[in-house]
Amino acid sequence: MTEAVPPTQTVLLAPTPASWVDYAVAHWRLLLVDHANCEKKAASTALSLMFAYSEDRKLSGALSRLAREELRHFEQVQRIMQTLDVPDVRQKPGRYAAGLRAAMLKTEPARKLDVLLVGALIEARSAERFRLLVPRLPDPLAEFYAALERSEARHFELYLNLAREADESDGGGECARRLAVLAAREAELATAPDRVFRFHSGAPV
Amino acid sequence: MTEAVPPTQTVLLAPTPASWVDYAVAHWRLLLVDHANCEKKAASTALSLMFAYSEDRKLSGALSRLAREELRHFEQVQRIMQTLDVPDVRQKPGRYAAGLRAAMLKTEPARKLDVLLVGALIEARSAERFRLLVPRLPDPLAEFYAALERSEARHFELYLNLAREADESDGGGECARRLAVLAAREAELATAPDRVFRFHSGAPV
Repeated sequence: MTEAVPPTQTVLLAPTPASWVDYAVAHWRLLLVDHANCEKKAASTALSLMFAYSEDRKLSGALSRLAREELRHFEQVQRIMQTLDVPDVRQKPGRYAAGLRAAMLKTEPARKLDVLLVGALIEARSAERFRLLVPRLPDPLAEFYAALERSEARHFELYLNLAREADESDGGGECARRLAVLAAREAELATAPDRVFRFHSGAPV
Repeated sequence: MTEAVPPTQTVLLAPTPASWVDYAVAHWRLLLVDHANCEKKAASTALSLMFAYSEDRKLSGALSRLAREELRHFEQVQRIMQTLDVPDVRQKPGRYAAGLRAAMLKTEPARKLDVLLVGALIEARSAERFRLLVPRLPDPLAEFYAALERSEARHFELYLNLAREADESDGGGECARRLAVLAAREAELATAPDRVFRFHSGAPV
């Protein structure tokens, strides 16, 4: 019997390079610092969507709950950093979020669809990387990341469902078309050689 | 025996005008719409401070928990709006937040102190207004606002304590000096005649 492919993996067009996983395992302290920042950014992105689409009450409620969960994860990462004596250092952002943002359409209603699909892709990639890291890291990190993989997978489903509902095209085909375009860009950003190491960076050079 | 003055009231330099309370009771549906927005903005402000002062781990952790609580309140307001059939409408912001922002010092470390003091003042004013509204509104609003008054009072204490810790002046007198300046501006914004009705607006004209 082969292991079932998690739903999150079906949208990722390329797996994370083994070299990224090796680097992350060797530099887990650096990873934790960026991870804390990712949780904050995830909450901030959800909040900015709540402001941008405030008339969409269902979306606002769902993203408010999601933002609360990301903030709780942020607090958990902070506690683990404290326990493991990892200092906070300011890091410049990697290319991933800016690269995805550049690929998004800028005018409504296309923008709303794109921003939700990008949210789904980021959550899917996060879940994939947590899954790859769990067997390679010691506790308490392994245990924590296993729990986070399950959360990210739920967030992926949420963003994808919101995107499907935001698709106003005839027959709803626009969602799949844009997902293909954005997923191709995402896979490139997550795998191409990258001088900067971050949670969502490409193959370390 | 006279009723004890809540700690939040000691920093407010003028009480909310009776005319604002009358107007709010008569227009509670309009109030709810702005209230939902205030909870979102409160979470967003806390998050922006977490990014601005990310090296301050204690502040980040405290504000993350605060942001989660504001988001939970947002979800509660949304549910009450649903129950009471209050539609979401987009409202232009009132003068209060922009007026307070204009009174803040712009360079560090003065900015950090000011932004925390402004946070304390907004929470204090919110607690005061919830307290004034509770005896005038029917349930479920009265009950909800009574619970919120207690939360806002806790948030006031938190912001004030963070401000005291951020005071780098000799003897710590800068905190009290800036509080006096900012509280005077706050009292003016919350009481002077105001053409726009909002949760933090002045006397309705």
